[in-house]
Amino acid sequence: MNLQALETPALVLDAVKFERNVARMLAHIGKLGVAFRPHVKTSKSFEVARCMISTPEGPITVSTLKEAEQFFAHGIREILYAVSITPNKLDHVLRLRAMGARLTVILDNAEAAHAIAAKTQATGHTFDVLIEIDCDGHRAGIKPESTDLITVAHILHEGGVRLRGVMTHAGGSYSCTDINAIRTMAEQERRLAVRSAHRLIEAGFPCPVVSVGSTPTATFAENLEGVTEVRAGVFAFFDLVMAGLGVCQIDDIALSVLTTVIGHRADCGWILVDAGWMAMSRDRGTAKQSIDQGYGLVCNLDGTPLDGVIMVEANQEHGVIAHRSGDPALIPHLPVGTLLRILPNHACATGAQHQCYHVVRSRSAVNEVWPRFSGW
Amino acid sequence: MNLQALETPALVLDAVKFERNVARMLAHIGKLGVAFRPHVKTSKSFEVARCMISTPEGPITVSTLKEAEQFFAHGIREILYAVSITPNKLDHVLRLRAMGARLTVILDNAEAAHAIAAKTQATGHTFDVLIEIDCDGHRAGIKPESTDLITVAHILHEGGVRLRGVMTHAGGSYSCTDINAIRTMAEQERRLAVRSAHRLIEAGFPCPVVSVGSTPTATFAENLEGVTEVRAGVFAFFDLVMAGLGVCQIDDIALSVLTTVIGHRADCGWILVDAGWMAMSRDRGTAKQSIDQGYGLVCNLDGTPLDGVIMVEANQEHGVIAHRSGDPALIPHLPVGTLLRILPNHACATGAQHQCYHVVRSRSAVNEVWPRFSGW
Repeated sequence: MNLQALETPALVLDAVKFERNVARMLAHIGKLGVAFRPHVKTSKSFEVARCMISTPEGPITVSTLKEAEQFFAHGIREILYAVSITPNKLDHVLRLRAMGARLTVILDNAEAAHAIAAKTQATGHTFDVLIEIDCDGHRAGIKPESTDLITVAHILHEGGVRLRGVMTHAGGSYSCTDINAIRTMAEQERRLAVRSAHRLIEAGFPCPVVSVGSTPTATFAENLEGVTEVRAGVFAFFDLVMAGLGVCQIDDIALSVLTTVIGHRADCGWILVDAGWMAMSRDRGTAKQSIDQGYGLVCNLDGTPLDGVIMVEANQEHGVIAHRSGDPALIPHLPVGTLLRILPNHACATGAQHQCYHVVRSRSAVNEVWPRFSGW
Repeated sequence: MNLQALETPALVLDAVKFERNVARMLAHIGKLGVAFRPHVKTSKSFEVARCMISTPEGPITVSTLKEAEQFFAHGIREILYAVSITPNKLDHVLRLRAMGARLTVILDNAEAAHAIAAKTQATGHTFDVLIEIDCDGHRAGIKPESTDLITVAHILHEGGVRLRGVMTHAGGSYSCTDINAIRTMAEQERRLAVRSAHRLIEAGFPCPVVSVGSTPTATFAENLEGVTEVRAGVFAFFDLVMAGLGVCQIDDIALSVLTTVIGHRADCGWILVDAGWMAMSRDRGTAKQSIDQGYGLVCNLDGTPLDGVIMVEANQEHGVIAHRSGDPALIPHLPVGTLLRILPNHACATGAQHQCYHVVRSRSAVNEVWPRFSGW
């Protein structure tokens, strides 16, 4: 099978670029002497994840219990669920643990700690927990110097819950404007995670795990002293947001959406294609960057970008392609039926719209089809 | 089962509002004396579509051949595929027609017309085709006065393809700023579709079908003389974009995402929930309207909006809820574990992120679970 035989839109994974991205990250983190726990929320595919894990049992990071369940079904046992746990998910966590998953959860507040302690007391089954630390004010987590850190550790300890350590995510790194800022953020992420761990240890709690990570900080971290593991996800595929941030080159982007030209509006300089927001996602992550890539950067069938040509607008199953200047004269002639590949703003969001990856290695031969799942 | 028993995030459909929306549209279009061909791309669910179709065999409108296939499997035969056809989809169309689907396709250019004529000649199997008309410069279609209209009709006729008429979609109505503008757009949509039909008839072609529609224009159309059918999709669920446009009230929105409070950032006035963009979609359709609803309007468990509280930011599985003023004092106290329902910007995009509808009629009892499909 080759790409020309696919009905469009379809998700394409360039295995050469994907493997290169993975090898580069594994080498970098390995050199820094810490474990790597890939985030599988980007791919939601065992076939992708298995190229990144250090043993058949993991470790991995997940963003939903559905991911935990699906990857566990493939034999992966060492799983970190990296969204703060809620009372209504504890039974599900216990079911997975009872089946043999070494599933660790996170939390950043006393209410959740009380709930998990109460569940431990009520069931006689304990949980493995990391306390989430806020290293950049980006989203969730306890501030490293907050008294809450010790309060939450106490609640867990008193309740018989197994406190395993701390984790943090420098999500703020996505808003950095240059690589030096990302390096600084990586060091801040490390420093504040390690500081939080020290505070726990000083207060008499164990803290074997110090987990950090985001694709930008993982890529540019120069020193991970005191850290035990790094998490990252989108690095495997990369995308236009990461390229805009300087974390990768356009040529590193392994994911694209295959689409067919369905018509033209020559008066406007528009080419219409059959990939709209349903295939690309509504993500407009490059809108805030110095180069706005619209809904994606347009490439020809072999993945070479067409200079300055982007998807400027998207409806559900229609994409509008134009030159970023708006000049109709700068659009190449692409007859109805022409196949194109669109590089996405955000690999996690675009991947989520599809049910499988069409894996290519050479120009257009589809070597394998890797399934991916969705939902909760 | 009730909503409290669901693991979040989960998609909730208020059947009372849904049925009211459908009844209102069917009554309105019925009064105008034309057929109604609901667009099932919004729901991708047979259980939803069957509440809108006039016979068990349809008619319906679809945006993908996957939709055609799935609904055909439920006995629906009268199907319009309303995205311009490409050569690489013709075999799939023929397979569906061979199975008994009365599948009509659309096109707006000579290249596609030549391709479909060639396929007809090569296979001996013909196609039913509508020519897409551009009534508002919004996206695709042939301009009503263009010579292309007659050229394309000729190519189809010469090639033995069955020209069934014209269709148009006033997508520009989504950008109207008041109801009078929508009424004007509805009349323009009607007038230009009918004018195109007259041109075909004057040129000696048959034109039994004159198909128009969009939720805004269908809702406010006052006269459909010369039109044979109306299409609309999002009206069944409605959403914040439609409410912002004045096409519905907030209270008409039948779709919401159930989510759980996972934590707080009291210093920022943020409440964190377990519905992020994966559950809401990245759609920010209200950003350009007079009231920007962020990633969605927050309601309590029974669906009543919390005054001024919206989802201001979304990561993959995290939503950040705050008062639109940014004032932390205006956020109600919502402990970890609290269930909320978020009304979406765009029902088509939010629904697409989920695999089923949890159908509620009273406060929180889940009466049924309706599956929905995705992909191509």
